[in-house]
Amino acid sequence: MHFTKERINALEKHTRTHLINSLSGFKSANLIGTQDKQGNTNVAIVSSVIHLGAHPPLVGMIMRPNSVPRHTFENIIETGCYTINQVNKAIYKQAHQTSARYDKGESEFDATGLTPEYLNEFTAPFVQESRLKYSVKYVEHQHLAVNGTELVIGEITDVYLDEAALQSDGFLDLQAIETVAVTGLDSYHTSNKLSRLPYAKKP
Amino acid sequence: MHFTKERINALEKHTRTHLINSLSGFKSANLIGTQDKQGNTNVAIVSSVIHLGAHPPLVGMIMRPNSVPRHTFENIIETGCYTINQVNKAIYKQAHQTSARYDKGESEFDATGLTPEYLNEFTAPFVQESRLKYSVKYVEHQHLAVNGTELVIGEITDVYLDEAALQSDGFLDLQAIETVAVTGLDSYHTSNKLSRLPYAKKP
Repeated sequence: MHFTKERINALEKHTRTHLINSLSGFKSANLIGTQDKQGNTNVAIVSSVIHLGAHPPLVGMIMRPNSVPRHTFENIIETGCYTINQVNKAIYKQAHQTSARYDKGESEFDATGLTPEYLNEFTAPFVQESRLKYSVKYVEHQHLAVNGTELVIGEITDVYLDEAALQSDGFLDLQAIETVAVTGLDSYHTSNKLSRLPYAKKP
Repeated sequence: MHFTKERINALEKHTRTHLINSLSGFKSANLIGTQDKQGNTNVAIVSSVIHLGAHPPLVGMIMRPNSVPRHTFENIIETGCYTINQVNKAIYKQAHQTSARYDKGESEFDATGLTPEYLNEFTAPFVQESRLKYSVKYVEHQHLAVNGTELVIGEITDVYLDEAALQSDGFLDLQAIETVAVTGLDSYHTSNKLSRLPYAKKP
């Protein structure tokens, strides 16, 4: 099947949103924990968290300042810190529910039953139910003028994980801790491992 | 388990690379098809393709100009066009092999047995074996000074897909076409669908 640019442009808006959101492939499912200076907590699901580099350890995410996670973006700029918490099979429905339009000051933790957790005096809340999570210090954001989004860049500091994930070479077995992946806007998946492949070399 | 920043910094380099690469969660697996002005083809696996927006349809990817896919980046800048081809279960080993350090002018298509395919007079080659692929027009790249990487942004034009993926609301069932996901640097996975969830609203 072939969708031309013209055919894509002519699609009903939601149909087009579903289609285009499916093209990039599997996406990560993470909960971003923040709070404002008054201590009001916020947690929001984001499917755009992306590895930027290991030396230094940097992580990025795309935020739409006019969409639901806008309080997240404001809190990050205000406090300079946030947590990233992988979503697992046991909490994916609650995680998805954080994308509803709650008002500022109305915590998604209370609304969804996820549990805020504070670790080692880091200001932003973690999600207790997450089995792999880390604290992040805000570094900078780059405005993508092409569509008004922001690439938010942070440095990974402390990592907390379920020991079941850790392998001897540093690889984390996300399947063992039932981390989920997202496709499109709303489909959640666990995984079946095919294999780990050796570092590729010319024969 | 808790890895402090100091403990992460003290890890052996490859161990740290594996650990940090695992933190973002599941990643997409895509082959980027390009060619230079002389018609020399290149195909490279990238795990950093990310949805940027549906209106207009934009896709991004993080490139490390000094690492293996550097020819890809050069070709995109030179010709302004590339293809993105989802990796499926049948070709994930060949896809992974494209990450070996082939010389400029030595095509990864020939080296791995993947088949270049030209569709509708688009200059860059597609991967015939991919079941969901699209042509992309280069828009711009943003330099991330924090670690010397580039965010390459392109506009999605034509989409080609196996009909088995398309659902009535525009959602594409990536599991039905056996698209794979990546964890860490080298682990490949198919998926088990949990469910699609309705658009979240306040109760």
